Amino acid sequence: MKKNYLMTPGPTPVPPEVLLEMARPLIHHRTPQYQEILKKVNEGLKKVFKTKYDVMTFTSSGTGAMEASVVNLLSPGDKAVVVRGGKFGERFGEIMTSYGMEVIPIDVTWGKPVDPKSIKAALDKNKDAKAVYTTLCETSTGTMNDIRAVGEVVKNYDAALVVDAVSGLGADDLDTDAWGVDVALSGSQKGLMLPPGLAFISFSDKAWKLVEKSKAPKFYFDVKKYKKSLEKTDTPFTSAITLFIGLERSLAIILAEGMGAVLARHRKLADATRRAMQALGLELYSSSPSDAVTAVHVPAGIDGGALVKTARDTYGVTMAGGQAELKGKIFRIAHLGFMENFDVIVAVSCVEIVLKGMGFKIELGKGVRAAEEALLK
Amino acid sequence: MKKNYLMTPGPTPVPPEVLLEMARPLIHHRTPQYQEILKKVNEGLKKVFKTKYDVMTFTSSGTGAMEASVVNLLSPGDKAVVVRGGKFGERFGEIMTSYGMEVIPIDVTWGKPVDPKSIKAALDKNKDAKAVYTTLCETSTGTMNDIRAVGEVVKNYDAALVVDAVSGLGADDLDTDAWGVDVALSGSQKGLMLPPGLAFISFSDKAWKLVEKSKAPKFYFDVKKYKKSLEKTDTPFTSAITLFIGLERSLAIILAEGMGAVLARHRKLADATRRAMQALGLELYSSSPSDAVTAVHVPAGIDGGALVKTARDTYGVTMAGGQAELKGKIFRIAHLGFMENFDVIVAVSCVEIVLKGMGFKIELGKGVRAAEEALLK
Repeated sequence: MKKNYLMTPGPTPVPPEVLLEMARPLIHHRTPQYQEILKKVNEGLKKVFKTKYDVMTFTSSGTGAMEASVVNLLSPGDKAVVVRGGKFGERFGEIMTSYGMEVIPIDVTWGKPVDPKSIKAALDKNKDAKAVYTTLCETSTGTMNDIRAVGEVVKNYDAALVVDAVSGLGADDLDTDAWGVDVALSGSQKGLMLPPGLAFISFSDKAWKLVEKSKAPKFYFDVKKYKKSLEKTDTPFTSAITLFIGLERSLAIILAEGMGAVLARHRKLADATRRAMQALGLELYSSSPSDAVTAVHVPAGIDGGALVKTARDTYGVTMAGGQAELKGKIFRIAHLGFMENFDVIVAVSCVEIVLKGMGFKIELGKGVRAAEEALLK
Repeated sequence: MKKNYLMTPGPTPVPPEVLLEMARPLIHHRTPQYQEILKKVNEGLKKVFKTKYDVMTFTSSGTGAMEASVVNLLSPGDKAVVVRGGKFGERFGEIMTSYGMEVIPIDVTWGKPVDPKSIKAALDKNKDAKAVYTTLCETSTGTMNDIRAVGEVVKNYDAALVVDAVSGLGADDLDTDAWGVDVALSGSQKGLMLPPGLAFISFSDKAWKLVEKSKAPKFYFDVKKYKKSLEKTDTPFTSAITLFIGLERSLAIILAEGMGAVLARHRKLADATRRAMQALGLELYSSSPSDAVTAVHVPAGIDGGALVKTARDTYGVTMAGGQAELKGKIFRIAHLGFMENFDVIVAVSCVEIVLKGMGFKIELGKGVRAAEEALLK
């Protein structure tokens, strides 16, 4: 027997009632029954995104929505400012290069948030930049960017502001309309407590004007097709029906708790995790940690790969290691989505037990105590 | 209380054990446990596709694989022959137009199969055509094309042969390698007995040579990324984990029955359905009917929309109506995927009951008797 605990920043655990809802017999997608679900999903997503604009849903990975934000806003030859402070920021640039756009990079040290002043400088130098692309939570480093401050800068320029909120949505606040975010995008397997397979994107009026001018080729990710279908409560292509049905249920759970309470819960869990790690003498990787995922330096003398592997294979706790250049150097504990106090306790306890077993000097229970103190506040 | 019967050519019913398998707690996609599933899925798909080449899986609707077959094989300005005999054949052309390719159309009367000679003529006239795009089963009309004969023609030219087998796979035979099909593509919600959300594509050596030369822009649907990941038993982007897990299970069911038996079952069910409709005095729409779905002319004096609606809302039987120019003119009964003798009996009985109720002159039980006779053969 082994009990498994999923503590990665995507996929995240799915509430059992959502899993069971998705296990019901299939229904057809062009029926009044399914239209009812589409309607609720669209209304719910707008509340989570904090936008008055329609949120369109693709059947794809989150990367599909990233590609959509590029091919629908820009044309080949267009310039765009891209904040690159981790694996996902870099992906925006890779997509643009594939489609013949010019990337104005702002390279940020991994683990640091972007300085809004550097965006201002880039826009001043490149008045013709069509958009600024950045991330809410850079999952690969557990770093949150101050999107409100970025929005304050970008609103003074013609450029649209695009925010990858794939892992951040529902954990780190994103006030899409109020902060001047023109395109917000996300995925299903994070704060929305679903399996992967759906991606979401919203467009402001300013963004739709760019869509009208965009000459990049597209078909499956053409947002005009989705917008047109949405107006008839339909999707342009057969959608991932079971995931939409699950989404209707998970949105209901989220909205019953209320977005304010959801964000406060993530803040509390993240705070408890961070304090626990520090109480154990471990160092956080990010100087601006996200409330979705906590990245922690692997302490000197410890094999980071073995740490994550032992947690998973011996204790059933799946955390994430580091990606790309951070491989073996950090481990990441997600407190994202369907997560509560005792999930944090399990994660912290597992880190204590595994590090102790690997010979790291640690006082057992010290991290858990710090977490409990934070949770009780 | 109402029992529901899903008889549409996608989505199709999903076996309960597959639904429950997908309802298990989420696992992470970069684990040995998931790699084991990916391995089995890849091996299983090759057997269903009857190809020695890798079958790559996208998290997308079937249209994603259609787009992939265009943007990976062709470059802007390239010519391709496109067989248009229904909604899905037309879609290939629409995708090509979006990406700046030139469409050499072969327009086939809806409900008729393509004449291989017309493909020969098109290729003789357009020696520079890079590929021929056609469908195995044109879902919108229930028409099967003779892909073996098309392959016999295309193999004498440089052009690659692309076959949309989204609804046909697992119902109408497709001997990918033996028939010279260079690119075969499909979706999850048809013969593979899964919810929608996954799309599949295979490439022959001849097709990979075109991939190397293709200059069309792409990122999410770039098959080279999927091929490279597949070699490491991975996916380039977070995949629809639960659907992959379901696919492992549904492929096991299909392969335990055996592809020969699966195809024979579809042939028997389709034959029984067709004989039943004809026994009722109804006319089949297609002159080359597919074993996946039977399209039937709505008889004179009957409201086709009301027929389908009554079947669904009063009797719980969801059939499909006609799409686009066929709206109201045909109804379609699928016998595709997780279907057995008594599914056909239910469908036929429902048509009898609904038509009787609508005042159509019909001898109750006559269609069912014809179906039973066919099933007993």
